Amino acid sequence: MVRPGIHAGAQINIALVHYPVHNRRGEIIGSAVTNLDIHDIARISRTYGINRFYLVTPYQDQQRLVAELLAHWLSGRGGELNPTRKAALELVKVAPDLATLYAELGALQEQSHQISQRPQGPRNPLILATSAMVQSRTMAYDQARQRLAAGDQILILFGTASGLAPAAMAEVDAFLPPIDGVDAYNYLPVRAAVAIILDRLLRSW
Amino acid sequence: MVRPGIHAGAQINIALVHYPVHNRRGEIIGSAVTNLDIHDIARISRTYGINRFYLVTPYQDQQRLVAELLAHWLSGRGGELNPTRKAALELVKVAPDLATLYAELGALQEQSHQISQRPQGPRNPLILATSAMVQSRTMAYDQARQRLAAGDQILILFGTASGLAPAAMAEVDAFLPPIDGVDAYNYLPVRAAVAIILDRLLRSW
Repeated sequence: MVRPGIHAGAQINIALVHYPVHNRRGEIIGSAVTNLDIHDIARISRTYGINRFYLVTPYQDQQRLVAELLAHWLSGRGGELNPTRKAALELVKVAPDLATLYAELGALQEQSHQISQRPQGPRNPLILATSAMVQSRTMAYDQARQRLAAGDQILILFGTASGLAPAAMAEVDAFLPPIDGVDAYNYLPVRAAVAIILDRLLRSW
Repeated sequence: MVRPGIHAGAQINIALVHYPVHNRRGEIIGSAVTNLDIHDIARISRTYGINRFYLVTPYQDQQRLVAELLAHWLSGRGGELNPTRKAALELVKVAPDLATLYAELGALQEQSHQISQRPQGPRNPLILATSAMVQSRTMAYDQARQRLAAGDQILILFGTASGLAPAAMAEVDAFLPPIDGVDAYNYLPVRAAVAIILDRLLRSW
């Protein structure tokens, strides 16, 4: 089994996508940002040394909500009372849409290419997503670990509500396999899926 | 690597312990039951086919709160609107304290001994706990998987607040290793710890 090691977390960015996603009826919606997801996923990301945790939402009121929450914990009273929470929430960034996120990570990538003289390889960052259903373009965990071990950057998209809409799914390079439970039940909280997937990619056996 | 397989989840009970636990100052307290932990950990347990998810709390008002919540989802309007949530919350049971829980599981065990004529082996159920710190009595994940593969029952205790108090820790057989992050940061939500630990014990590689 390939072991990129826990420090490869620095090569991973994750994004919690609030638009475009499906509701339970398969309609395309924008979901509301939830305080709980921000805190839980930030703490999980901090534990595993993830580079950044992006919240993708096009709604200005939602972006404002996130900015207020972050201000409380990063520069306000919250961070003084609970510095470990501050350390987690420092990883959170907002992106208005996926195109902006891809451009930002592409630009970061470009910079690090110039600095490290790293030769152009396959698309980098590799954009992965998760899905509760088996997709045709699947990348096994071991393959993803190999990419990390080779030094590649990975962006992992997590859909809120009932999952990423087709337009978002069409743009990803591959899907990590669904988290198999004991039977067809497949209603893990996205917070739990993030924890399990990062552990599968990064834990040292 | 030993692979008990996902169906071994039926041999596992988990307990979220609200008393006796530590607060941040190391004082022994009883923590409040949170709606979120119940829902999230029930959904994770259902995904991995766990036998039962116990809430351990001695407080009658808290027990009543849980009973109302379960009634809404199991026999009320909630379960009609969201049957997948009902399927998860069906796993939840309340125990007033650890002694009662141990007696209940011992009794269940006794029964299954009589039925299966299984010879008395080591203490069964094996009682494991998790800890953010390395403990002297540690059982590696692979050892725990071996016990599952051998057909043993396991009870896993998860502490709320700042973790199990010494009296509770003294009674467990062994501790699973801490979930190693990239550095000393160790503030995973208990919900995330449950997800990661069940995945480590049960996933088929």
